[in-house]
Amino acid sequence: MDRERFEKQMAFILEIDKLKQVGRQNYLADGSRKENDAEHSWHLAMMALLLSEYAPGKVDTGKVILMVLMHDIVEIIAGDTYCYDEEGRLDKEEREKKAAEVLFGMLPDDQKDMMWSLWNEFEEGQTPEAEFAAILDRLQPFFLNYKSDGVSWLEHGVTREKVVERNRPVLEGPEPIAGFARAMLEDALKKGLLRP
Amino acid sequence: MDRERFEKQMAFILEIDKLKQVGRQNYLADGSRKENDAEHSWHLAMMALLLSEYAPGKVDTGKVILMVLMHDIVEIIAGDTYCYDEEGRLDKEEREKKAAEVLFGMLPDDQKDMMWSLWNEFEEGQTPEAEFAAILDRLQPFFLNYKSDGVSWLEHGVTREKVVERNRPVLEGPEPIAGFARAMLEDALKKGLLRP
Repeated sequence: MDRERFEKQMAFILEIDKLKQVGRQNYLADGSRKENDAEHSWHLAMMALLLSEYAPGKVDTGKVILMVLMHDIVEIIAGDTYCYDEEGRLDKEEREKKAAEVLFGMLPDDQKDMMWSLWNEFEEGQTPEAEFAAILDRLQPFFLNYKSDGVSWLEHGVTREKVVERNRPVLEGPEPIAGFARAMLEDALKKGLLRP
Repeated sequence: MDRERFEKQMAFILEIDKLKQVGRQNYLADGSRKENDAEHSWHLAMMALLLSEYAPGKVDTGKVILMVLMHDIVEIIAGDTYCYDEEGRLDKEEREKKAAEVLFGMLPDDQKDMMWSLWNEFEEGQTPEAEFAAILDRLQPFFLNYKSDGVSWLEHGVTREKVVERNRPVLEGPEPIAGFARAMLEDALKKGLLRP
């Protein structure tokens, strides 16, 4: 029995409890409050399970689920960078890499390596799994923003152009997801939820 | 392209957003607020990933992750039944079964069957995966209750006996998890976080 190994794992499990307190800019679908990173990650995992048939290429659904479950853990230290915050995005990569070193470094070596490997694959976005995870990571807040009558878009005065730029992987992604997103975009504009 | 299929999937994905609003009785580790079901499910999935080496018997970790991700979805309709609420537990099974029919019934047939199958396996608790999921589902709130200085136990006047009964799968489960839980229990008693 390797007691030290187990204690490292439990310390990490305690540490990531903090992801429940990392706030995001999008609201829940009913607009009652903003979402946090742990809820977002759970929702993405369920979407990965249910929508993987539409992924670009054949994907290992289990791996997509792991990626989306852990992709935001670095934000416990680095904070959530709002996707339309251009200044915040400048040093995002560096801040998140340092955070990954601290957080994944809490785990036993084999699990630290597993977390780095999943996170790097997600960040590089080159495999079908990472591509699909990135599509879900954009589709989910897009969907919630739309369903909550654009309250977060309106708060930040977000323009159509910004949403198109951010959601390119979705809007130019696989059908029927892309068509669904284009319809949301069009309707959001019609309803004045986005600035033209 | 099966448009109806996709629309059912997205309607379900929207519906389960409500799991973020199903409150639990335990607090986050820092005691700042109570946890919700979506956060709890995410935390369990991370625990399944990191602790599966201690499962009783060889488990398919991916399946454990799916089980813990979806096991509380029925509570969107049935509500969370506090584990020490004896009256509420009487008709829990019936309420949750009805909720499962409504919620899983929103999905295309193949995915509805998948959800039923995962949920039945979890509820019946007969496979190594279901056993391990049940251990995690108890260990996680036990750990958070302990780390948050027993605030939820104190609020409800929970006794040692109740905690032992509820956490039997953990306390009599595989090492080192069982030993870790016994040490928490002993320390909680010493600190007066539980009634003797």
